[in-house]
Amino acid sequence: MATKSSVSVNQSHTVQTKLVIPPDTNHIETIFGGQVLSYIDEIAAISAMRHCNNVVVTASIDRVNFVGSAKVGDILILEAFVASTGNTSMEVYVKVYSENLLKKEKKLTTTSFLTMVAVDESGNPTEVPTVMPETEEQQELFNTAQRRKAERIKGQSSSAIGAAR
Amino acid sequence: MATKSSVSVNQSHTVQTKLVIPPDTNHIETIFGGQVLSYIDEIAAISAMRHCNNVVVTASIDRVNFVGSAKVGDILILEAFVASTGNTSMEVYVKVYSENLLKKEKKLTTTSFLTMVAVDESGNPTEVPTVMPETEEQQELFNTAQRRKAERIKGQSSSAIGAAR
Amino acid sequence: MATKSSVSVNQSHTVQTKLVIPPDTNHIETIFGGQVLSYIDEIAAISAMRHCNNVVVTASIDRVNFVGSAKVGDILILEAFVASTGNTSMEVYVKVYSENLLKKEKKLTTTSFLTMVAVDESGNPTEVPTVMPETEEQQELFNTAQRRKAERIKGQSSSAIGAAR
Amino acid sequence: MATKSSVSVNQSHTVQTKLVIPPDTNHIETIFGGQVLSYIDEIAAISAMRHCNNVVVTASIDRVNFVGSAKVGDILILEAFVASTGNTSMEVYVKVYSENLLKKEKKLTTTSFLTMVAVDESGNPTEVPTVMPETEEQQELFNTAQRRKAERIKGQSSSAIGAAR
Amino acid sequence: MATKSSVSVNQSHTVQTKLVIPPDTNHIETIFGGQVLSYIDEIAAISAMRHCNNVVVTASIDRVNFVGSAKVGDILILEAFVASTGNTSMEVYVKVYSENLLKKEKKLTTTSFLTMVAVDESGNPTEVPTVMPETEEQQELFNTAQRRKAERIKGQSSSAIGAAR
Amino acid sequence: MATKSSVSVNQSHTVQTKLVIPPDTNHIETIFGGQVLSYIDEIAAISAMRHCNNVVVTASIDRVNFVGSAKVGDILILEAFVASTGNTSMEVYVKVYSENLLKKEKKLTTTSFLTMVAVDESGNPTEVPTVMPETEEQQELFNTAQRRKAERIKGQSSSAIGAAR
Ligand SMILES: CC(C)(COP(=O)(O)OP(=O)(O)OC[C@H]1O[C@@H](n2cnc3c(N)ncnc32)[C@H](O)[C@@H]1OP(=O)(O)O)[C@@H](O)C(=O)NCCC(=O)NCCS
Ligand SMILES: CC(C)(COP(=O)(O)OP(=O)(O)OC[C@H]1O[C@@H](n2cnc3c(N)ncnc32)[C@H](O)[C@@H]1OP(=O)(O)O)[C@@H](O)C(=O)NCCC(=O)NCCS
Ligand SMILES: CC(C)(COP(=O)(O)OP(=O)(O)OC[C@H]1O[C@@H](n2cnc3c(N)ncnc32)[C@H](O)[C@@H]1OP(=O)(O)O)[C@@H](O)C(=O)NCCC(=O)NCCS
Ligand SMILES: CC(C)(COP(=O)(O)OP(=O)(O)OC[C@H]1O[C@@H](n2cnc3c(N)ncnc32)[C@H](O)[C@@H]1OP(=O)(O)O)[C@@H](O)C(=O)NCCC(=O)NCCS
Repeated sequence: MATKSSVSVNQSHTVQTKLVIPPDTNHIETIFGGQVLSYIDEIAAISAMRHCNNVVVTASIDRVNFVGSAKVGDILILEAFVASTGNTSMEVYVKVYSENLLKKEKKLTTTSFLTMVAVDESGNPTEVPTVMPETEEQQELFNTAQRRKAERIKGQSSSAIGAAR
Repeated sequence: MATKSSVSVNQSHTVQTKLVIPPDTNHIETIFGGQVLSYIDEIAAISAMRHCNNVVVTASIDRVNFVGSAKVGDILILEAFVASTGNTSMEVYVKVYSENLLKKEKKLTTTSFLTMVAVDESGNPTEVPTVMPETEEQQELFNTAQRRKAERIKGQSSSAIGAAR
Repeated sequence: MATKSSVSVNQSHTVQTKLVIPPDTNHIETIFGGQVLSYIDEIAAISAMRHCNNVVVTASIDRVNFVGSAKVGDILILEAFVASTGNTSMEVYVKVYSENLLKKEKKLTTTSFLTMVAVDESGNPTEVPTVMPETEEQQELFNTAQRRKAERIKGQSSSAIGAAR
Repeated sequence: MATKSSVSVNQSHTVQTKLVIPPDTNHIETIFGGQVLSYIDEIAAISAMRHCNNVVVTASIDRVNFVGSAKVGDILILEAFVASTGNTSMEVYVKVYSENLLKKEKKLTTTSFLTMVAVDESGNPTEVPTVMPETEEQQELFNTAQRRKAERIKGQSSSAIGAAR
Repeated sequence: MATKSSVSVNQSHTVQTKLVIPPDTNHIETIFGGQVLSYIDEIAAISAMRHCNNVVVTASIDRVNFVGSAKVGDILILEAFVASTGNTSMEVYVKVYSENLLKKEKKLTTTSFLTMVAVDESGNPTEVPTVMPETEEQQELFNTAQRRKAERIKGQSSSAIGAAR
Repeated sequence: MATKSSVSVNQSHTVQTKLVIPPDTNHIETIFGGQVLSYIDEIAAISAMRHCNNVVVTASIDRVNFVGSAKVGDILILEAFVASTGNTSMEVYVKVYSENLLKKEKKLTTTSFLTMVAVDESGNPTEVPTVMPETEEQQELFNTAQRRKAERIKGQSSSAIGAAR
């Protein structure tokens, strides 16, 4: 078997900036969590596609805590990169900040890990290159990937009861 | 202090049926994970609002595994109810099935737990009634709520390092 | 010719719950009639597809009276089922309620009958199973279907003059 | 009481042209009936607002027959004008054609009558000017308005049983 | 080579009327420039398709000055026609007015020239009929087309440095 | 009068990455020019808001040449920064590339200059800080700003005849 190619994390590093507009928000002008989740999935998909140059599907998203909200007129800044890779799967790390430009306040909204799987035209998983971390943050996330993977497998089996219904 | 009122889970039980259309899907006509997450958050918010008769915000969503996909022309069936309640928070359980009507095939897409918090007009958490489970499934989810809460708190502290960046 | 199969109305019974958000509404925060009509057509299509397990198109919608409005923050509850069947057409009954969750007020928005036709991939009408009513309301609507059909035919010929322009 | 002002039908005469795009269509690339209904309501609202220079709500839409369909890439041409007026209500006539530009084929999709009511900021019905027909078609529709109104009232009472549920 | 066919400007003359709704606007309820540009491109495409009965792509849009704004509840009136033709390209002229119906105020928002190119299924430019102006305004725009084309070519070469980056 | 504050171009430097999906495209799966223009205006607004920490409106957009197209499944990469400043206006430079990830091909779609104006809550123009270029490209665009401004004023007077209609 051929050695897998290896790709710098820079290739998947992706940034988005979104303006929060009224249709994204509820009564009290706070952005819907679902809108943020949808932005997180979109940037994770683009990041993973850039890494593997293939179509991808979302296999899972780890627990998301919304530690801060965003209001109409704020901007959301999303940043994503492939943190680690498996055989056909990529673990993408996404950070979301909101910024009130008028008050010059920037705060964390949430961070998240998604697992994206590269698929061919029939939807079957297909191999991805391995990722090479560059910065210290990327190196740390790369090193701790096995631990997160283990927790996911543990979580999957414990929630299997619920899913069986 | 006054005794908190208590509300049957029937009040928050909510069903949605969505037709998967081309704008919701990628190249290979598979629905985007972000679209499903957005539907999950929407039904969880409606379910929680029905329980507490108040505005709600999404505090968190537990890990979501997409065990099956959905294609253009399939329908998605979402079902949600409040599984347990805290002081100001509600834990909402959401199940998602996809159905290929032409082939008469129905399969599980995912299940999920979200924590919604009731807020007043200024966005401050406000008390919610306690929930009373009715069916066996609801009773089981009610009984295991403390265990899930404990896991969430554990998860929050271990991911705190990442969030600090 | 083979006897047509027969299907319980339960198979097509469909429920939707929608949150009214700012983009659905006008100046005075009242939902657009066209938005409600669009929701009615969507649920009727899903209901009919569930009955006949085929693609459907909307042939007609009977007169719709908007007896009550809905405001930003209300929820709309839609309920639909196949009320009667022809050879290739299905008559779908849709009820719409709006609910102000904060004031705990629920009121009728409108009811409506649509005729959906099952079509094959080339768009040609194709046979549907007959429907079997279950509840008293369903039985009553089933029994009065001929009368509504007669009124539709009468209406069509009298409005034919306008359509000829 | 002051004499009501009177306004030419030209003031409310409104034309729309829409390109049918993939998100508006189903599997077999036929436009959703609900999308057409939504366009009909939008042009009727604009037409009525132009007549009365006020906010309007949709009180009702008469039976709509979809006599022809439209496909991705076709254009829809909508035309609307106020056909007759009551005290606070306006009857708007809408015609919809679809055109396949490549084949140079134009066909009728549907015609429809809507009743729009002028409302003030609190949503209470408010007086509208009377309309003056200009063309022969407009004159004919103006003359037959009483007959349509009578049929509507008849229809309302006979469907009252259904609405009461 | 066969003589090119020639088509009256009436065939491409197109009118649109849009209601400005909250999702189209920013904080201070003013419509986004990008929304207006999107409407201008849509009407120009429909107008050009009507002239050449073919698929078209936008090759360029001349400088657009937003001389007036539009607010939530205003209507936008767009008007477009093919002003002149090349071999495979059509120059479309678009005028946009906004109208405050309650105050009965109508003002110019912007005017714009776009170049649309007819393409075949592979995206290759394909011949279009020549246009015949009818009104004085159309005749004047037809006569001055060469001058605008010259300015476009001049602009293209001077901006080539920027594009090369 | 107080000396105006001065801000590095880094503060307004903004990047967007968009996935081209079916609803953004025509028959032959090419993105609509209007969709690209809408993205350009959105990123220019965010960039300008970041520079001046205020609400902004689009005053004008210079001529846009679509030198390359983008197809379903491609990604669009937009980059924007404030190139020069006036008293209340900011000139924003936007570059758009499209990338076919599967073929690893990246090509220029277009470049564009927009003029955004900072406004207060009543929509009146309000002062902006001056911009300080950092890179060679930014310095060159800063130096040539006067020439572009002169061309805009020339263009405005020559097109004034058209606008007067
Ligand atoms: C994701 C999917 C392709 C995996 O299929 P599968 O038959 O389980 O394939 P495999 O067992 O070969 O797994 C493929 C990879 O996905 C990983 N994976 C599968 N399920 C996962 C999950 N829930 N979470 C994280 N990773 C997962 C596997 O670990 C494996 O990774 P590796 O190749 O790097 O070791 C399949 O479950 C699927 O199609 N799900 C739906 C995806 C989708 O459509 N999402 C959008 C919304 S529904
Ligand atoms: C959710 C939020 C209101 C909590 O505020 P807070 O200051 O932490 O308030 P409290 O400490 O009083 O907590 C309120 C309740 O939320 C629960 N909670 C807080 N953070 C949580 C989390 N990440 N996951 C689950 N529950 C959480 C608390 O346990 C508490 O529950 P209880 O009253 O039932 O015991 C706040 O974090 C927030 O506004 N987040 C953004 C929410 C949002 O806008 N989401 C949409 C997308 S960004
Ligand atoms: C339309 C509405 C304002 C009428 O209110 P109402 O209390 O019945 O008012 P009135 O009895 O004074 O009637 C006002 C006018 O509407 C007409 N009208 C009322 N219901 C009607 C119906 N279903 N069909 C046609 N006309 C109707 C009346 O004939 C009367 O016309 P006139 O003044 O020209 O004689 C009210 O029913 C309403 O708000 N409905 C919801 C409208 C809406 O929000 N639609 C969007 C989707 S839900
Ligand atoms: C427009 C396009 C088809 C022109 O292709 P090309 O290889 O330059 O073709 P040609 O040189 O044969 O030019 C075809 C016509 O377009 C005109 N044209 C080309 N670029 C133009 C521009 N920027 N502005 C105005 N007209 C232009 C030419 O003058 C010629 O007109 P004519 O036939 O009437 O004399 C090509 O540039 C393209 O596909 N651009 C992307 C279009 C698009 O997808 N837009 C949507 C958003 S990206």
